[in-house]
Amino acid sequence: MEEKDKPLILVTNDDGITAKGIRTLVAIASKLGNVVVVAPDSPQSAMGHAITINNTLYLKEFTQHEYDHKEYTTSGTPVDCVKMASHEILERKPDLCISGINHGSNSAINVIYSGTMSAAVEAGIEGIPAIGFSLCDYSADADFDASAPYIEKIIKQVLEHGMPKGVVFNVNIPKVSEEPYKGIKICRQANAHWEEEFDKRTNPYGKDYYWLTGKFVNNDKGEDTDEWALAHNYISIVPTQFDLTAHHYISTLNTWEFEV
Amino acid sequence: MEEKDKPLILVTNDDGITAKGIRTLVAIASKLGNVVVVAPDSPQSAMGHAITINNTLYLKEFTQHEYDHKEYTTSGTPVDCVKMASHEILERKPDLCISGINHGSNSAINVIYSGTMSAAVEAGIEGIPAIGFSLCDYSADADFDASAPYIEKIIKQVLEHGMPKGVVFNVNIPKVSEEPYKGIKICRQANAHWEEEFDKRTNPYGKDYYWLTGKFVNNDKGEDTDEWALAHNYISIVPTQFDLTAHHYISTLNTWEFEV
Repeated sequence: MEEKDKPLILVTNDDGITAKGIRTLVAIASKLGNVVVVAPDSPQSAMGHAITINNTLYLKEFTQHEYDHKEYTTSGTPVDCVKMASHEILERKPDLCISGINHGSNSAINVIYSGTMSAAVEAGIEGIPAIGFSLCDYSADADFDASAPYIEKIIKQVLEHGMPKGVVFNVNIPKVSEEPYKGIKICRQANAHWEEEFDKRTNPYGKDYYWLTGKFVNNDKGEDTDEWALAHNYISIVPTQFDLTAHHYISTLNTWEFEV
Repeated sequence: MEEKDKPLILVTNDDGITAKGIRTLVAIASKLGNVVVVAPDSPQSAMGHAITINNTLYLKEFTQHEYDHKEYTTSGTPVDCVKMASHEILERKPDLCISGINHGSNSAINVIYSGTMSAAVEAGIEGIPAIGFSLCDYSADADFDASAPYIEKIIKQVLEHGMPKGVVFNVNIPKVSEEPYKGIKICRQANAHWEEEFDKRTNPYGKDYYWLTGKFVNNDKGEDTDEWALAHNYISIVPTQFDLTAHHYISTLNTWEFEV
């Protein structure tokens, strides 16, 4: 039931509709607006900005008894969920799209692999203000309670100020410790990367296979980075864009010789 | 067999190792360096920056008789291919990674959905100069011949100049027409988007399903965009970055009120 004068908030994630993180986000959003949930029917972590074009998509209403809003699952990726919400489910453009709360960090270069953030970016591409929330705790039973007031504050600020075209927020929240959170910091994406290692094994039929594993390496000492903020118990917000042009490099490139 | 004094070039794509586009790119690369090919064993279009973390990966040598270099397939995404090449197959860091030639455009916002470009971006993250090549022609039998001298020129320029950290190239090539290509243009990513439509059908068992379809809409009139260049029969190069921070918006955001 849509209450008048309340914003329409689309909630999605990449861990699937039953994950603890999205249930926390739904609870917060329900206090602030009219909620519609469209989320994957199964975990879709690390799907990046994948979309489903070589396969069919299924859409199903998801039964829950806690709220009187509607919830749906799709068989697709987080980006598919946003597209289906915008173009098949919702009658009007939502005022905000929130994605998460992800079980695990999407700071630094992780933003690029993240299904959570790709859903937010997709909403941004469609002109919808959007925020991806991630807690730096991979456990299925992670403690999201301490982050709730901060998430609520960030959502309220976005609803109040709006968001410029071409920008979405990447919000990361430290794992709960004995110390309370120190507050919220506006940051840039740390220049960090993964050092991959492949764990090679042999299956019962004698065929080799691999698991992708890796170690996260941050050599960026900047105190204005998301990694610095998280390491010092701050919640980080990185304003994130999807114009990927390296504008600063265009003038140099124009001096290269490209005659054939 | 690695010839000394020749650059080591990693070739990958998202259409799969047997696609006409990658075979053209392998032919060009073989004239310029020592080639190793690591590509998906099946089409992986629109996979974005997806990686395989919830499933096993298979790696297989791919038999071909045209060249004396090695070729491999993986069961994973384009990004998985680059990671496997760097960390499992190659003994040293390649001097260049080229991805493509994609059957279809990766201009404007398509860069974000593109498996071709995600492979190039992954190489860039690992500090390898990288270029994604795409031809604006989706057909399996597309004509790649006219683009070969331009691709060769771009590769040679990158090998000569190197590439700064944090930048990779997104190269798009117009579909072959009666007119020859006008040349190469350095561009920014056009501010265009897709207007989705879902084609709803019913399967033989009475269950509804959807196909994602859409129309590409470009309202960006800029003559410095990749879309303008392609529409005017130029090959476009967009220098592309993976620091997604909207640096210009940080100072504004610092004026918002985030006290809890």
